Amino acid sequence: MKLELARKLAQPASTKILLCVLDGLGGLARPETLRSELESADTTNLDKLVTRSEVGLTVPVGHGITPGSGPGHLALFGYDPLEFDIGRGVLEATGIDFELGPNDVAARGNFCTLDAEGKITDRRAGRVPTEISSKLVERMRTIKLDGIEIFVEPVKDHRFVLVLRGAGLGDDVTTTDPQHTGVPPLPAEGGDDASKRTAKLVNEFVVKAHDLLSGEAQANGLTLRGFAHYPHLPSFPDTWGVRAAALAVYPMYRGLARIAGMTALPCPGGMPEQIERIKERWDDFDYFFVHYKPTDAAGEDGDFEAKCHALQEFDAFVPQLTDLGADVLMIGGDHSTPALMAAHSWHPVPFLINSKFAREGNSLRFDEQECAKGNLGVFPATEVMPLAMAHAGRFTKYGA
Amino acid sequence: MKLELARKLAQPASTKILLCVLDGLGGLARPETLRSELESADTTNLDKLVTRSEVGLTVPVGHGITPGSGPGHLALFGYDPLEFDIGRGVLEATGIDFELGPNDVAARGNFCTLDAEGKITDRRAGRVPTEISSKLVERMRTIKLDGIEIFVEPVKDHRFVLVLRGAGLGDDVTTTDPQHTGVPPLPAEGGDDASKRTAKLVNEFVVKAHDLLSGEAQANGLTLRGFAHYPHLPSFPDTWGVRAAALAVYPMYRGLARIAGMTALPCPGGMPEQIERIKERWDDFDYFFVHYKPTDAAGEDGDFEAKCHALQEFDAFVPQLTDLGADVLMIGGDHSTPALMAAHSWHPVPFLINSKFAREGNSLRFDEQECAKGNLGVFPATEVMPLAMAHAGRFTKYGA
Repeated sequence: MKLELARKLAQPASTKILLCVLDGLGGLARPETLRSELESADTTNLDKLVTRSEVGLTVPVGHGITPGSGPGHLALFGYDPLEFDIGRGVLEATGIDFELGPNDVAARGNFCTLDAEGKITDRRAGRVPTEISSKLVERMRTIKLDGIEIFVEPVKDHRFVLVLRGAGLGDDVTTTDPQHTGVPPLPAEGGDDASKRTAKLVNEFVVKAHDLLSGEAQANGLTLRGFAHYPHLPSFPDTWGVRAAALAVYPMYRGLARIAGMTALPCPGGMPEQIERIKERWDDFDYFFVHYKPTDAAGEDGDFEAKCHALQEFDAFVPQLTDLGADVLMIGGDHSTPALMAAHSWHPVPFLINSKFAREGNSLRFDEQECAKGNLGVFPATEVMPLAMAHAGRFTKYGA
Repeated sequence: MKLELARKLAQPASTKILLCVLDGLGGLARPETLRSELESADTTNLDKLVTRSEVGLTVPVGHGITPGSGPGHLALFGYDPLEFDIGRGVLEATGIDFELGPNDVAARGNFCTLDAEGKITDRRAGRVPTEISSKLVERMRTIKLDGIEIFVEPVKDHRFVLVLRGAGLGDDVTTTDPQHTGVPPLPAEGGDDASKRTAKLVNEFVVKAHDLLSGEAQANGLTLRGFAHYPHLPSFPDTWGVRAAALAVYPMYRGLARIAGMTALPCPGGMPEQIERIKERWDDFDYFFVHYKPTDAAGEDGDFEAKCHALQEFDAFVPQLTDLGADVLMIGGDHSTPALMAAHSWHPVPFLINSKFAREGNSLRFDEQECAKGNLGVFPATEVMPLAMAHAGRFTKYGA
């Protein structure tokens, strides 16, 4: 749905919408049992909920497209992920809770190992441990560049974030990572005047940093990529006319929600705290986005049992979630992460929406096969928000 | 999917993709039995394959749109058939294996019957037999036009192809066929300067041709339509990063594949030879398009039994097709041709995709009703290629 249309149809109401995103929810069957994670796990509460809900499979970006976390969530928030793009540098910066401003250009940095001729021998500097890399980051913070501020922030192992802050910096800057070894890092190049200025500053930074790192055995070089401004996403609360809160443990998802204009509430303790926080702030918001990470983490690890376990752990919270009494309760995922693939995948994702206006369907359990029978069909994840708005009585009629 | 996105996501792999197109695959139930051709035929091998595949119904162009062979195939190759158009003249020329060049404008020709006043009395010249019409074509080959080359090629009965070859010829030229009798053929008119030049040459050709045909009783006139340049399709191999081969018996499908940049391998002997050729050239290609015509031919003839028989004949080759060991095997159709309609139709088309990443589904047989239950849903045929790429491990992740 075009966001302008959403804005036109949105009408005030006192209803509450609750979206629970089980990260990497969808899976694939194990050949031994022919059952997926959802089909193997004991998810009694979700199954009970399905029989009173509308059900389907969401396609995050398009058939065959495996989404990163950014596009997967943007789609669930109603943004076309092919239209709205969040750069790697921005995601990395939000992922460490760095508050980006409008004049910032963020980049993802990697420490690498250079030989005597300056050629890369290891693109990840032997995955140098965070204890060491964070000290190198501190050393790089001493670098000064003319007319702008810089921030260097450690992430994990060989990864760090570089932020350039200054008026008129462009972000159309090429990567300095040649993507293979045996060659030196590339110079950054800008696509327009503003980005040429950024590239020049970036190249100065790299020269100074290489000086500071020259004594290191492993991490004596660096590469930078994913240069990006803070994206100009239309405000989620303005578009849909809802006061929106995000309940996420991991910084990247809080960051994504903030980019959309939601209020990220602190809840480092996970589900019990996420639910508690919703109760406390019930009157302050109309829309609550709850992020649940363990399903994706287990999937990425290729740990089928752990993913089943993560699903069961979530299932145990379902009664508390329904007890919150939201007018619309949705449970879905940003993408599939089948343990069998140990990676994100393109497979459509189970989804349910529960409200007093939910039409009864044919699905008996919350799993891939039963959701494929659902009365919502296989549909784009960008339609989730319009559905939520309708079930919440927050959309007026279209046309006379 | 936009082809630019496909190009960005495509990554190298050593996997093989096999697409079998059963022309006019979809059908309609006979009122006597309430069973379609696929439901009536004994297709044990396809049915077995379905239970291990992802399944759905493809919509070739859009709900309600009955596609010709061009759009139906273009969609399966990932081209939006509403964006990419292959002119009638080009299809007709490729259909007789005429190799069009970049300076060619092709048109479809019809012999017609004119009365003494030059008015059309029969738009198809009594479907004059090929033995006669091909001699008339030879006669027209003697025509010379200033500054360009011309080619006149027989097709079948009253149909022929005219190709004008010369630099700077436009193809925005109106038809000379008034679409009804009792009026003379129309003069060709050009929409721009280059096409006005073409139109002038076309009108000269018609005058000279009418002179040469004036003694004929039936085929004493002609009309021309579908003026078209060879289309500038983005290359299929470049877009998807696959070396692509086409295995088709009929020239039109070989021509379509060649227009997309595939290599058409000779296989006049049909399925046994098509399979043999794939084995021989296995290492040379990553993508194989196999075209099977008998289903459409029987459907167009309105012969329900013959279509069932054609489906069974294809089914018998399925074990050999799976034995090829492609990483991704897809079986689908370019459109429906229900025997009950004796024509192409708009009905969505059964489709299956088999790979080690195929999610188990609910469909038990390869037919219209069971594919409607499939976990791919009812989806645009243009999504077939992205799906194939994903299952083949040939697409990288979208977004961070």
